[in-house]
Amino acid sequence: MQLPNVSPVDPGWLEAAWARQDQLTKPRRALAYLEELSVRLAAIQRSLRPELGQGAVIVCAADHGVAAEGVSAYPPEVTGQMVLNFLRGGAAINQIAQVAGAEVYVLDVGVRADLPAHERLIAARVRPGSGNLRLEPAMTRAQAEQALEAGMEAARRAIREGATLLAAGDMGIGNTTAAAALTAAWLGLPAEAVTGRGTGVDDARYHHKVGVVKQALRRAEQRLGDLAQADPLAVLAALGGLEIAAIAGVFLAGAEARLPIVTDGFPVTAGALAAVRLAPRVRGYLFAGHRSAEPGHHRQLEALGLKPVLELGLRLGEGTGAVLSFPILRAAAGVLAGMATFEEAGVGPAVEGS
Amino acid sequence: MQLPNVSPVDPGWLEAAWARQDQLTKPRRALAYLEELSVRLAAIQRSLRPELGQGAVIVCAADHGVAAEGVSAYPPEVTGQMVLNFLRGGAAINQIAQVAGAEVYVLDVGVRADLPAHERLIAARVRPGSGNLRLEPAMTRAQAEQALEAGMEAARRAIREGATLLAAGDMGIGNTTAAAALTAAWLGLPAEAVTGRGTGVDDARYHHKVGVVKQALRRAEQRLGDLAQADPLAVLAALGGLEIAAIAGVFLAGAEARLPIVTDGFPVTAGALAAVRLAPRVRGYLFAGHRSAEPGHHRQLEALGLKPVLELGLRLGEGTGAVLSFPILRAAAGVLAGMATFEEAGVGPAVEGS
Repeated sequence: MQLPNVSPVDPGWLEAAWARQDQLTKPRRALAYLEELSVRLAAIQRSLRPELGQGAVIVCAADHGVAAEGVSAYPPEVTGQMVLNFLRGGAAINQIAQVAGAEVYVLDVGVRADLPAHERLIAARVRPGSGNLRLEPAMTRAQAEQALEAGMEAARRAIREGATLLAAGDMGIGNTTAAAALTAAWLGLPAEAVTGRGTGVDDARYHHKVGVVKQALRRAEQRLGDLAQADPLAVLAALGGLEIAAIAGVFLAGAEARLPIVTDGFPVTAGALAAVRLAPRVRGYLFAGHRSAEPGHHRQLEALGLKPVLELGLRLGEGTGAVLSFPILRAAAGVLAGMATFEEAGVGPAVEGS
Repeated sequence: MQLPNVSPVDPGWLEAAWARQDQLTKPRRALAYLEELSVRLAAIQRSLRPELGQGAVIVCAADHGVAAEGVSAYPPEVTGQMVLNFLRGGAAINQIAQVAGAEVYVLDVGVRADLPAHERLIAARVRPGSGNLRLEPAMTRAQAEQALEAGMEAARRAIREGATLLAAGDMGIGNTTAAAALTAAWLGLPAEAVTGRGTGVDDARYHHKVGVVKQALRRAEQRLGDLAQADPLAVLAALGGLEIAAIAGVFLAGAEARLPIVTDGFPVTAGALAAVRLAPRVRGYLFAGHRSAEPGHHRQLEALGLKPVLELGLRLGEGTGAVLSFPILRAAAGVLAGMATFEEAGVGPAVEGS
């Protein structure tokens, strides 16, 4: 498959944006992390007056064969039921997107249930759920490519329809197990370090989940060798998540179009890790919307070198934490774009380090 | 003076809101702090479908006699210059308010400079700057009352003009020194624990600033006795900040009107402490927009029992951190108001603790 061509983010724009930021009417660095966000946005947009308009979130949905192992507190049917809920506007992501100025698109790359046609549903099912990653590859390499491409296509549609700021969301009962396996594989971490409680499993189920992740990693290693060094598409196919592959596609196409792309929680950030493995320049376009309560999410963000905008303890997914950060990103852009300089405002003297 | 009559927040509404929150289509408590915010908003609005529309921030401005002590990195003229910048829309608060759906009102209760008439400037100058709190009372008791009343009037105007969510901001070179003295007085803490770098003073100026706060506290104690026990209005007058008194008024009137009221950084939260001292029920209406980099701010929030929505390291004031939290508060309300229940959405079974 042809991976998109991602341009590097030009460090010259970062420098120029810092220079403007330091002339604005406030003590130097008084807006702290908001200033860091603003200069990255300026460099991505190649403008000292960055502007973020309409946002979009692509909620990528799929079922997981590994759900049969009882790794989630919810039955697999919930994946399809929640997709219907997204389409009817009844889920958390719908409410948050409305407040935060984002369109919600739902991408089906592997839901088992029948779904109705709907203008916001992008039907691109690769297969009805992944294989059980404890026992078999989650999908074939060709299927991983197909899911990736579906994610890219969905992102391109959102961009054509006006998105200037892009997030991915996830829905898939069992997907924190797949995300844990992928994260352990790519970061070279033990299963225990990256496996969490997901939607809220009890102790017994949690220990079982860690065992499932271990077995999946062992199985994949026997076929592919050192997973941190193996072909990332092969690792993605082995440990899966059809929707995680699609999320990687969303980020690839977002970076190709030079849009800021925003991560959500643990499964979405697994997709971001996949995208960066496939095209390292994607990293320059990524923003961490929030840090979730999943322990492995912290390790992912560390590996990507991303500092979260929000830390509210969310552990829902759907893109909620990503979209919730949109107004903060818009404010960061607005500060750099719209504030007066000391000279323009006649405020001064601008005291260095004051 | 007549303090406003603040109604208690009814715990029955909190309970009813939690009951609804737990039926919504998400794992129990998966939206974490957002859920806590939502139930408080429901109880304040006495509605299980809380809704936050237009916001407003009252930026309270005044000069400080203590600025003559060299406690700030900026010259006192900057207070008036920044007020003009607010009116022209060139400051950080203007940009953030635009993104976050808030009107900006500027309240002059004690700026020294001449200011032009402007539709967004509420001219209610009590005196041109406070007294130097190291040497003399910041203001008389009558002046403190007048500043409080100006804050109340400004808040009432914003509410009449459509605000459903209210923040206070601050502008006043020298005001972190006044805020430190008030915070030390009310929380019974030593000057060192609550004095910070403000807009960014160096080590020598910082130690001098701590000394000024100590002298101010000693002077006030000689007149009023134990400051934690003294009449709060007398303490406010002694250690001042005309704009801090006005901020207390904004919060009093906001709570009286049963609006959610949002704190910003260190000087604004000193005003919130004052309001709660004057009318303890104000506490039920307060939300902490963010936690600033000032060490004393952490102590204030602890004393008020408030957990910040944002932690971005901001140290600007003007109401920036408060207003930046508005979209998050709106999203919290939206989730409770608009999400479908498990029953409505046909999602289930709703697994307890899942």
